[in-house]
Amino acid sequence: MIDLRSDTVTKPTSEMRKAMAEAEVGDDVFGEDPTVNRLEQKVASLFGFEAALFVPSGTMANQLSINVLTKQGDEVLIDKTGHIFNYESTAAAHLSSVLLKTLEGKKGKLSVDLLQNNVRGSHDWDPRTKVISLENTTNKGGGCCYKEEELNRIREFADNNDLKIHLDGARLWNAMTATGTDPIFYSTIADTLSVCFSKGLGAPVGSMVLSSKENIKKARRMRKMWGGGMRQIGILAAAADHAIEYHYPLLEEDHQRAKELAQTISSCSKLSIDIDSVETNILIFDVKEGDAESVIPHLEEKGVRIVPFGPKTLRATFHFQVMDEDLEKVEVAFKELFDE
Amino acid sequence: MIDLRSDTVTKPTSEMRKAMAEAEVGDDVFGEDPTVNRLEQKVASLFGFEAALFVPSGTMANQLSINVLTKQGDEVLIDKTGHIFNYESTAAAHLSSVLLKTLEGKKGKLSVDLLQNNVRGSHDWDPRTKVISLENTTNKGGGCCYKEEELNRIREFADNNDLKIHLDGARLWNAMTATGTDPIFYSTIADTLSVCFSKGLGAPVGSMVLSSKENIKKARRMRKMWGGGMRQIGILAAAADHAIEYHYPLLEEDHQRAKELAQTISSCSKLSIDIDSVETNILIFDVKEGDAESVIPHLEEKGVRIVPFGPKTLRATFHFQVMDEDLEKVEVAFKELFDE
Amino acid sequence: MIDLRSDTVTKPTSEMRKAMAEAEVGDDVFGEDPTVNRLEQKVASLFGFEAALFVPSGTMANQLSINVLTKQGDEVLIDKTGHIFNYESTAAAHLSSVLLKTLEGKKGKLSVDLLQNNVRGSHDWDPRTKVISLENTTNKGGGCCYKEEELNRIREFADNNDLKIHLDGARLWNAMTATGTDPIFYSTIADTLSVCFSKGLGAPVGSMVLSSKENIKKARRMRKMWGGGMRQIGILAAAADHAIEYHYPLLEEDHQRAKELAQTISSCSKLSIDIDSVETNILIFDVKEGDAESVIPHLEEKGVRIVPFGPKTLRATFHFQVMDEDLEKVEVAFKELFDE
Amino acid sequence: MIDLRSDTVTKPTSEMRKAMAEAEVGDDVFGEDPTVNRLEQKVASLFGFEAALFVPSGTMANQLSINVLTKQGDEVLIDKTGHIFNYESTAAAHLSSVLLKTLEGKKGKLSVDLLQNNVRGSHDWDPRTKVISLENTTNKGGGCCYKEEELNRIREFADNNDLKIHLDGARLWNAMTATGTDPIFYSTIADTLSVCFSKGLGAPVGSMVLSSKENIKKARRMRKMWGGGMRQIGILAAAADHAIEYHYPLLEEDHQRAKELAQTISSCSKLSIDIDSVETNILIFDVKEGDAESVIPHLEEKGVRIVPFGPKTLRATFHFQVMDEDLEKVEVAFKELFDE
Repeated sequence: MIDLRSDTVTKPTSEMRKAMAEAEVGDDVFGEDPTVNRLEQKVASLFGFEAALFVPSGTMANQLSINVLTKQGDEVLIDKTGHIFNYESTAAAHLSSVLLKTLEGKKGKLSVDLLQNNVRGSHDWDPRTKVISLENTTNKGGGCCYKEEELNRIREFADNNDLKIHLDGARLWNAMTATGTDPIFYSTIADTLSVCFSKGLGAPVGSMVLSSKENIKKARRMRKMWGGGMRQIGILAAAADHAIEYHYPLLEEDHQRAKELAQTISSCSKLSIDIDSVETNILIFDVKEGDAESVIPHLEEKGVRIVPFGPKTLRATFHFQVMDEDLEKVEVAFKELFDE
Repeated sequence: MIDLRSDTVTKPTSEMRKAMAEAEVGDDVFGEDPTVNRLEQKVASLFGFEAALFVPSGTMANQLSINVLTKQGDEVLIDKTGHIFNYESTAAAHLSSVLLKTLEGKKGKLSVDLLQNNVRGSHDWDPRTKVISLENTTNKGGGCCYKEEELNRIREFADNNDLKIHLDGARLWNAMTATGTDPIFYSTIADTLSVCFSKGLGAPVGSMVLSSKENIKKARRMRKMWGGGMRQIGILAAAADHAIEYHYPLLEEDHQRAKELAQTISSCSKLSIDIDSVETNILIFDVKEGDAESVIPHLEEKGVRIVPFGPKTLRATFHFQVMDEDLEKVEVAFKELFDE
Repeated sequence: MIDLRSDTVTKPTSEMRKAMAEAEVGDDVFGEDPTVNRLEQKVASLFGFEAALFVPSGTMANQLSINVLTKQGDEVLIDKTGHIFNYESTAAAHLSSVLLKTLEGKKGKLSVDLLQNNVRGSHDWDPRTKVISLENTTNKGGGCCYKEEELNRIREFADNNDLKIHLDGARLWNAMTATGTDPIFYSTIADTLSVCFSKGLGAPVGSMVLSSKENIKKARRMRKMWGGGMRQIGILAAAADHAIEYHYPLLEEDHQRAKELAQTISSCSKLSIDIDSVETNILIFDVKEGDAESVIPHLEEKGVRIVPFGPKTLRATFHFQVMDEDLEKVEVAFKELFDE
Repeated sequence: MIDLRSDTVTKPTSEMRKAMAEAEVGDDVFGEDPTVNRLEQKVASLFGFEAALFVPSGTMANQLSINVLTKQGDEVLIDKTGHIFNYESTAAAHLSSVLLKTLEGKKGKLSVDLLQNNVRGSHDWDPRTKVISLENTTNKGGGCCYKEEELNRIREFADNNDLKIHLDGARLWNAMTATGTDPIFYSTIADTLSVCFSKGLGAPVGSMVLSSKENIKKARRMRKMWGGGMRQIGILAAAADHAIEYHYPLLEEDHQRAKELAQTISSCSKLSIDIDSVETNILIFDVKEGDAESVIPHLEEKGVRIVPFGPKTLRATFHFQVMDEDLEKVEVAFKELFDE
């Protein structure tokens, strides 16, 4: 079975398992796990932030970010496809008492035009707009990347309106691969950045929040309160470190395979796709007739798993455990099923 | 100064003050205020609900309704102009841990077409759609009214999808005046209904939640927790009762005055208005050039107060303390300022 | 029926009703009610605070105070008899995410000895002690008053430990009557002070939070969020103002009547009371045999209502609507029922 | 350095690391990790519960338990030494809006005598007592164990008062070792049970909630919301499974070593200890003079780490990585420092 449902399905390789088995560990709740401490420093330095915090999931990384940037009564502007609005239950409301105000971005990306006229908060009854939450790449938006100039303009808008920026960088590794942006750049854009080791990078568990020392200190307390304080997790940090060193360079290949499949899909008479929007490892495409849900079992019969993403929409996601020979099989399956 | 900023600005008349001064009272926290108890029964009966609860504000009425219909992890579908999304800070997130998912209704009204494909909740990470929140009339939507058949279709959709309906009826009195709908009808539509005595009805303070006995029992506990349990409020209930008896019949006149002003506005060369959308006491209209904010002081110089409602949009609201002679002055002012 | 259940049961007098009927009003949500504005300034000045906020209940006044002094993860130290721990449901947890840590004070009063060793917060997993919450007079503690020197010592302790002080002054009027303390003194003790107009003072509704301008600005936003923003409440503020002017001076008589009843109770063979602890308008006493609940109906037969306050404990509360002739009847009833 | 600060400091052995490196994994957010699924079934069966959920920490296990058993307005009775009140920040307030009411148990244990007269909730303003939270063994209470008959009596009290029971069994493994109780027994006592693999059992990460299928389904959603949903955690589950198989049987030795050290401490002239209260792997003892904090560096100089547990109180905790030869060194150090 070739699993294109998500890049979260990757499994640790034997080399990664070896790194985990040999990891030096300590009690991270006491701040004493050397492997975790080294990884937090390494990733903070990579992206140019003061401090970082290893957490069990991307959801916790995003929610800690929202939490340290806001207080009761605040509002977060976010694209309607945002992970925080769609895949984290009602965590932002529950954990931080904030409203999520969704905007109609393009391919999951916000712009200053959209943000204009959406800052409120002067009256006692107003939600107080405080944070712009961006996602790069955009998952539900099709894995698209922000250009540096787009982010610079949003940062300028944020500064002019006294807003903070959270960047959900679960797939920022993919964005950097596609755009060649220097990681340091993101610390000039985001007040808080979350990155993930368990999606395309292929570690089994783990995300990280990056921000100022003060914000990370707050986040550490909230992590404990939400039950995310873990003990000898050097084992997980070792996997994450291995992923950065050995899997991050492989993302380029995922992107190429995604583009190749996009070509195939565009040639299938029963499917439609916007090829230009395939910028990284994610493909979003439509069935011209019938509903998306119903094609899943037919693909599974042919050994391919993808996920429905709307009434007529499907998503396929590449990762380093889908190789060239898998891609070929997928292309054969697509042609058989979707081309007349 | 003729105050068209809102129908909340009405002040108690001398007759209403007399009713308040003579009200029989008791300690409502102990359930012992006879005037409150009578009013709760009267309004519950009027709309066909089992029970009712008097509360200090429309915000508390709406938020108690959301609270009794939901639990952590639930989502409320609401038009983007909804009061609960725009004028109640982040209360729904803070008090009930729910997400508000906004839809792009017409003049503030939702429809089954819009609701379709917006029910989610099967996965652990999904917000769980639980409530449809309607507003009638629609305040930011321009005071428009739902037709009975529109509400019946939404109720059917809700039943088919295991959803509850909250109806924010702050201005339901206006809707009933405009459409002639039997009040009892609303208990066939809404699981919780909030009505307000301090808008067009002109009582100084007070709203009410209507629902099942069980829901009202829960709401009573939450009202105490949020600080809304008050003592000898028969005084306020007497004003509300007086408002129902003597001011409710006057709403018809407000609507006629609003329509007359709409005609005048449509004839002003510098303004634009959709006359057909003026169904009750609220007018929403645009300045063709310049920004809305800047006309406020010019109108105030002429003794008229209204509020900006968007970059180029303004709102004027009629209430029983704006009489025919006031309307004439307003029309003169508009022609002088906005017609060439 | 002579109602000694609470001083919340007082009903507005005809003079108070007249003041209410004549009150000048405006929309307080817009900050435009002149009677409310005057009262807020008057009470703030009386106690020496920068600003004040009129709210619907003592619970809201206390909870707004806790809310502006704390953030998620903070802890409030409070006597186990405190109103905030016993009569406000779980509001402190729900609205401010704080823990209440109860201490075993004497007659509801805390002291530095008790507070010592109860300040925590250095570790990520610690609740962070942030507020000392005092009550004066102590309701469940029997209406006892803090001495100025006791409060000065607690303030010093708070300063040395970076803690804030909230003073629940629902019955501070009684404390000032009993101790002769200058109202201004309390602004040297408390960061936030709540006072109530609807207990011994006899207004139908209303409490007030006093604090710095910044805190009151925050409280105003949260009041709106919790549904406590009301419209033309000059009517209620007029009653509160009348209560300060005309009922506050009567508290002295309540205290004398309470002490007289305490003497009677101490002479009843079936009851026991600590006479010295009757400092204001509240009496707490025990039945020597049987349970407290069971005496309620016998007293009601004789026209007297009081409340059980524990398995063997009862509370009686005086207020200005219990006159000397009522006291005599109560004493007769007590002797008949509780003396052999 | 011999680390007796906590049994959380144990590090994975090479055998455990091997088990982790070889673990079969899948995406647990999709319910597809076979090692996790097997462990959840195994532990649920062991204790006689319908279902179980693997979570990142004991705090999350406890808080999920509180969350599924309560709603806003509910209160949890707990001993003042309870982990949930002392080591989980204000999570119970923040995540579940509940009040924690502390009782003065003995050695951390509650009894029916204490619980009597502490059930409240009939009035709108009452916190509504809903859960009794027990800890077995009692961490801050000194590692003491409940007797089966004590738990049976509390269960009976709970049933009679419509209360639920949560059992924080972070060290239930130690309790079972000391008392010989059949694990199945606990499902007759507790509505929710949390157990931990990362304390005495020595797994690097992981706890589990056990309860009914319905409660675990709810807990799974809340786990996702709080950021505790992790991906390929078969690796962690494999460690937990190894811990049950190979480390659980070693707890008996920890207990014997603790008792031996207790004897030594009782013979030290500068220390005092209640030997009978040393039932498992935890020792709590006092310095007769000076303060507890100040002895820490002297012990560290001699290669021994323990933690202060109060102004004059210390705690030492045994675990399987403190061997007989380590115990000897600790005893020598104690005699040198604390005996004249």
